[in-house]
Amino acid sequence: MPFRCPARTRRIALTVKYDGTDYCGFQIQARARTVQGELQSALSELLQHQIQVTSASRTDAGVHALGQVVAFDTTNPIPPCNILRAINEHLPAGIAVVKCNEVVSAFHPRYDAIGKNYRYRMVSATLPDPMRDRFAWRLPDNRFDIRAMREAAQLVCGKHDFAAFASAGGAPKNTVREIFNISFSHMAPVVECSVYGNGFLYMMVRNLIGAFVKVGRGECTPGTISEILESRDRSKVGPPAPPQGLFLVKVEYRASQWF
Amino acid sequence: MPFRCPARTRRIALTVKYDGTDYCGFQIQARARTVQGELQSALSELLQHQIQVTSASRTDAGVHALGQVVAFDTTNPIPPCNILRAINEHLPAGIAVVKCNEVVSAFHPRYDAIGKNYRYRMVSATLPDPMRDRFAWRLPDNRFDIRAMREAAQLVCGKHDFAAFASAGGAPKNTVREIFNISFSHMAPVVECSVYGNGFLYMMVRNLIGAFVKVGRGECTPGTISEILESRDRSKVGPPAPPQGLFLVKVEYRASQWF
Repeated sequence: MPFRCPARTRRIALTVKYDGTDYCGFQIQARARTVQGELQSALSELLQHQIQVTSASRTDAGVHALGQVVAFDTTNPIPPCNILRAINEHLPAGIAVVKCNEVVSAFHPRYDAIGKNYRYRMVSATLPDPMRDRFAWRLPDNRFDIRAMREAAQLVCGKHDFAAFASAGGAPKNTVREIFNISFSHMAPVVECSVYGNGFLYMMVRNLIGAFVKVGRGECTPGTISEILESRDRSKVGPPAPPQGLFLVKVEYRASQWF
Repeated sequence: MPFRCPARTRRIALTVKYDGTDYCGFQIQARARTVQGELQSALSELLQHQIQVTSASRTDAGVHALGQVVAFDTTNPIPPCNILRAINEHLPAGIAVVKCNEVVSAFHPRYDAIGKNYRYRMVSATLPDPMRDRFAWRLPDNRFDIRAMREAAQLVCGKHDFAAFASAGGAPKNTVREIFNISFSHMAPVVECSVYGNGFLYMMVRNLIGAFVKVGRGECTPGTISEILESRDRSKVGPPAPPQGLFLVKVEYRASQWF
């Protein structure tokens, strides 16, 4: 019997885009359509053994991604460029792999991330538009006070205990996070808010956006946002912004690890 | 018993936008999700009697609309502005009514149309993008010859027998139609083709786009398009462009009838 070299296990990282509308979030669930579920089925089919992926962020139901990062181990020797070429044929139209690389075996998409960039899209419009509203929060208000929203955003930038902006369900021990930058772009009727930080608590971005919109509508002042932050009391924060406006844009790693 | 004035029947016209992806076309079918089916249920619920709508165009499965026009009769005296305000609450997220007017009782959205404008969106890209590709035909080609496509388009403008560009299933007696104008816009990687005419046969726009793309790829010359047109033989035309790139943009009427 010929000697067979034991299959080498490689760790592969993927950048994934998805339209989250029709998925119950990233994380796999027994009886629901999830992004992780679809990715694992497609990869297992292509690589011909059971694949389990870990992700940089467990995006919620309805949240989209332009640059989610996932990693998995495989013993299949197929080159990354061939995985990239073939995998999209196995995935539904709402999910696409756009980058595929072999990474060091210790690489972890969540623990190794040093920055995450989210974008939230709002649109001021009285009437709905099915194409636009699939990827935005439609607000029937005629105008927002973007200056007040910018002011509120500056107050939460930096290293803070964001416990007040975390919804129940995440329950991490440490609720301190650092927001590096928040910027707004306004091309009427669209307002986009880009939030860049080292990590985010459960629903933190959507809770922040919900609070900024209250400021933009004049329902509270930028100072109220500071008070909520300092209170560390999540009962003080209003309802989160809906999921369809949120995009996970990019996850950053040290240059040596990935790209 | 008090005298009750008999309910006056009014004809109402709506402009409707929809994301056709999740619908089996406009026209109602017994066991499928259709735009007409959703509109009729929503209107019947709102107006509290059975509503039947007629449309300007019976768009195919997967085709989108920015300005579909439909009309229906109702005995409910609710003003059009209130129908507009309320109807979207009864419709699924993929369909929206954006205009609502009372029209003359003889108005027919299809027979009275004097012009229809369709837009077809193509994108040159090797990799898929779930958000973009929902509303475009992705072509992995690096480049199209837009000049050749424009030349081919000019050859089909005007009044012609378009029998060669009609797919089986429509079977109208008269296959003569007039195309007023076809224009291309190119903002790499997106190519948009706008087709404006007095009416279109079954699958005619998608068959034309499929033929233009063959020209753009150099698989045939603009002259071939003329030959196909003159042959009146639909076996000569290649496969139609897929539905997800097509939008019914606008239906035109005489100013006196509508808007």
